[in-house]
Amino acid sequence: MAEYRAPVNDMNFVLQQLVGMDQIAALPGYEEASPDMVAAILEEASKLSGEVISPLNIIGDQTGVKLNEQGQVPTPVGFKDAYQQYAEGGWGSLQFDPEHGGQGMPQVLAAAVLEMWQASNISWGLCPLLTQGAIEAIEANASEAIKAQYIPRLVSGEWTGTMNLTEPQAGSDLAALRCKAEREGDHYRIKGQKIFITWGEHDMTDNIVHLVLARLPDAPAGVRGISLFIVPKYLVNEDGSLGELNDCGAVSLEHKLGIHASPTCVMSFGDNDGAIGYLVGEENKGLACMFTMMNNARLGVGLQGVAIADRAYQLAVDYAKDRVQSPAPGSKESNTIIRHPDVRRMLMTMRTLTEAGRALAFTAYGNLDHQLKGEDKARHQARVSLLTPIVKGWCTEVAQEVTGLGVQVHGGMGFIEETGAAQHYRDARILTIYEGTSGIQAQDLVGRKTLFDQGEAMDALLAEMLDTIETAQQGSERLRGISGSLLSAVEALGQTQRYLLKGAESDINLAGSLAFNYMMLAGTVCGGWQMLKAAQAAEQLQSGGDYDPKFCKAKLISAEFYMDQVLPRYLSYAAAAVTGSESIMGLEEDLF
Amino acid sequence: MAEYRAPVNDMNFVLQQLVGMDQIAALPGYEEASPDMVAAILEEASKLSGEVISPLNIIGDQTGVKLNEQGQVPTPVGFKDAYQQYAEGGWGSLQFDPEHGGQGMPQVLAAAVLEMWQASNISWGLCPLLTQGAIEAIEANASEAIKAQYIPRLVSGEWTGTMNLTEPQAGSDLAALRCKAEREGDHYRIKGQKIFITWGEHDMTDNIVHLVLARLPDAPAGVRGISLFIVPKYLVNEDGSLGELNDCGAVSLEHKLGIHASPTCVMSFGDNDGAIGYLVGEENKGLACMFTMMNNARLGVGLQGVAIADRAYQLAVDYAKDRVQSPAPGSKESNTIIRHPDVRRMLMTMRTLTEAGRALAFTAYGNLDHQLKGEDKARHQARVSLLTPIVKGWCTEVAQEVTGLGVQVHGGMGFIEETGAAQHYRDARILTIYEGTSGIQAQDLVGRKTLFDQGEAMDALLAEMLDTIETAQQGSERLRGISGSLLSAVEALGQTQRYLLKGAESDINLAGSLAFNYMMLAGTVCGGWQMLKAAQAAEQLQSGGDYDPKFCKAKLISAEFYMDQVLPRYLSYAAAAVTGSESIMGLEEDLF
Repeated sequence: MAEYRAPVNDMNFVLQQLVGMDQIAALPGYEEASPDMVAAILEEASKLSGEVISPLNIIGDQTGVKLNEQGQVPTPVGFKDAYQQYAEGGWGSLQFDPEHGGQGMPQVLAAAVLEMWQASNISWGLCPLLTQGAIEAIEANASEAIKAQYIPRLVSGEWTGTMNLTEPQAGSDLAALRCKAEREGDHYRIKGQKIFITWGEHDMTDNIVHLVLARLPDAPAGVRGISLFIVPKYLVNEDGSLGELNDCGAVSLEHKLGIHASPTCVMSFGDNDGAIGYLVGEENKGLACMFTMMNNARLGVGLQGVAIADRAYQLAVDYAKDRVQSPAPGSKESNTIIRHPDVRRMLMTMRTLTEAGRALAFTAYGNLDHQLKGEDKARHQARVSLLTPIVKGWCTEVAQEVTGLGVQVHGGMGFIEETGAAQHYRDARILTIYEGTSGIQAQDLVGRKTLFDQGEAMDALLAEMLDTIETAQQGSERLRGISGSLLSAVEALGQTQRYLLKGAESDINLAGSLAFNYMMLAGTVCGGWQMLKAAQAAEQLQSGGDYDPKFCKAKLISAEFYMDQVLPRYLSYAAAAVTGSESIMGLEEDLF
Repeated sequence: MAEYRAPVNDMNFVLQQLVGMDQIAALPGYEEASPDMVAAILEEASKLSGEVISPLNIIGDQTGVKLNEQGQVPTPVGFKDAYQQYAEGGWGSLQFDPEHGGQGMPQVLAAAVLEMWQASNISWGLCPLLTQGAIEAIEANASEAIKAQYIPRLVSGEWTGTMNLTEPQAGSDLAALRCKAEREGDHYRIKGQKIFITWGEHDMTDNIVHLVLARLPDAPAGVRGISLFIVPKYLVNEDGSLGELNDCGAVSLEHKLGIHASPTCVMSFGDNDGAIGYLVGEENKGLACMFTMMNNARLGVGLQGVAIADRAYQLAVDYAKDRVQSPAPGSKESNTIIRHPDVRRMLMTMRTLTEAGRALAFTAYGNLDHQLKGEDKARHQARVSLLTPIVKGWCTEVAQEVTGLGVQVHGGMGFIEETGAAQHYRDARILTIYEGTSGIQAQDLVGRKTLFDQGEAMDALLAEMLDTIETAQQGSERLRGISGSLLSAVEALGQTQRYLLKGAESDINLAGSLAFNYMMLAGTVCGGWQMLKAAQAAEQLQSGGDYDPKFCKAKLISAEFYMDQVLPRYLSYAAAAVTGSESIMGLEEDLF
């Protein structure tokens, strides 16, 4: 089967035309991110992803990973070499501070590149993704000494990082953490077990830097008593050389539905004297430190949804262009199935959900760049905070649908593992679960992101969407058509938000009951907003004349399809959201 | 994990209260199907399914099946024994003609029992399901001599049956079949390869009866040149004893996403002199013969969707009642997750989609009984024909959603294979594909079942649904509430049908473009109709007093939830259906 072809044209389009890369490149520190530089970076990343990382995707799935008797996890053939090429290419340093060896590029550009790694091989791509999260947590919270010791080696790709949150009794509920930390001079001794630790053990690098949440003996109960520690696999000497093996390691690997090549470890810390760890940030403030890392990781997982959707789409298109079966309407002879309307409907659904998701995710990363380097930080931060659960929640739910359609387009062959469609379907299934389930994202959206500010950030977003529609309504007939139903959709989102704000006070179950529908509604509407912006830009570029006219034509049709076939979902999400909590909570537990 | 618990109460309720088992038991030949007999049969089947077949489900998934060097497929431990218990219990003969050793019970009762086999173990259950289809095809089409020779042994469970349609170039497109048959005295010689042959080889019985579609040398091209043959694995002597091994067998097994314990075979016929086959029905009329079998098989696959949805629901409920995580709204301490509104929303969605699907599928089987034994055959036949693609299409699409939610309720544990939720998700994935993909069902619904009769059968269904609503509107306040939005939904289905009838003439792509949305709309609305009927019956029984009040209470809440959270989907299906074909077909092929 064909390898992954990075959607470089669409990425450049989204970055330059929708996200406003010119404004981002004007931010202090981002001067090098010119359109040419952006295009060149995307082009280079597309080679590594398509030629080196993508071919390992099926091998990894078939080989899987195992923990050997020495407690090591040998990675599938080719994984280590691909990782070295990634590190040597400087791909791990793209968006990080030049002070610690980074290239200081915008987050949104790194996001585009990240999408490529994830699309080419989600199991492999998780390792850099987790490392990136670890770097962010250390950069934002650790002492200068720790930063100097760890960040350059993580940024260079020499070492990788992990996030150790979950324990058997503490999944979504971090308040239930039990892992212990005791003070011992300038360091701490960590004891406890963590589960679901992605890339917790492997052979691609010499060292692994674990970020571990644990409790001090005198810590308050609940989430206010959690501290964050760095626990390196090998201790690091003053001169930077590696010292002794720390008292920690993987004790078993999970047998999973998908992402078979990504070792999901049960990690044990301190089976003997206790693993040596170093505090990151202040004692008992670990949760806040972890959230710096988790929020960006959530955007990253949303992007994984876009990535795997695109990969599934490419595979389905190839099959549909090749497979001949039955005459299409109006034809007397058998045709390739891409000519059959229902197959076309599936492919267009896959395509436009992917395009809308990409545009929305990149937009959130663009806001992050403004938040980090721009002047109006608070406004952009509020927008990133609002969009994060939408991107994570909606794009990963959409990934289930798109990879499912990818199987469906293949018919019977889709159920056969050799085709590859089933692997994407299996791999994608984790995305609505890790880094906070869809339910947790929805809860975040209705709680911290809507009720907490009384809808202020959402109101700002609604206003911006209405502005876009108003501009479109003054444009061509075609744009008026595309924007027509979006107006009702944006209004429905506003009404649902007001219903939530009004009803949540008197009904304690309301927020939780409508959360998922509200999140899916917001995602569907925001996706439509992005597609309208894309249509506007495409029309303008088309008349300008120096842009690929085929690309513009396709984008306009994508937007029309989205409004016809995808956007109408807002009707059911909105209708279901405003039915209250009674029928959801009505059934007594013993009647289930 | 807990074994499958057959929903005997709900099955009895649906049979007696919704399907009208009293009327079916009044049909000639069905006199024995009294409420007590029905309940006793369900009770017995629930034991075999829960105690014997269900425990083999995970073993089968983990062991899988392999073709050995002798061309045999040993089944997983316990499979053969369970099959023998099934055969000895007479379960394979329930609905068949007493003339050939059957028990002459109604189809709808057999359907309820069939649901249990499929829910307890879909891989295992496929073997009886295919055998049932083979019996139906032989019974309806073969000569008396062939019937006498084969049916009693299939009905008794002594032998099993298979359906051999698909070839590599001929999946949905049977016109492209190439398998050959040559006349030779009183029999034929069959040569060719078939793929995706479920239970094509195994060790559970002494003989396997293959039904094979093939072409005679002088046959017309296309579907009018296909004939149906019986090709037994072992030839059958005059006295009924087994003779020589026929020139056919499995040459490889597929490596699949799910149903690992069901051998999906590549079958080769006639590698040497040609496999000996016997004509079923007339030459070149094989497709019609196959359709007798395929239509019932399609209802059976729809029922598999209901079955696996119920199994996933049961597993998720058990987990949600056990897993403690975070305080629910209004609570200060951590609670079982079933108390969290979003988990409750997922469980109720699973529950009500399953209940609605069961009621709809059983209703179709009830119509089949009236068609077979009743007076107003034509009307019931039209209804079965109309409901078949809806039951197959909608219930299997719903099964994807429900098994996906089953994984989601489990959080991170859902992605771990040991939990069992992932197996249901993988197993369910085949259901929208085999026996005609969802696209094929949708095509059948818009084409043969709507355009062909100019909407007559659909109009009759719409009228019946409106009648139900009218009665409910004259009932209690609660019933008025439950039926409120269903009226708009039924009207939307009617409008969509008229849009199709009007637009299909001038736009050759319209029918194919809206087919899937039309099918999902019809399923959602029919599901609502069944839930309203269930609510009516539950309310009446509740006031009657001799029915379990808890069951009635739960059913009313289920109906309310369905109307609040599931039915609103009709809005988006209907809105998407009436946007024509332009944006679906607009993108040129080279722009994909």
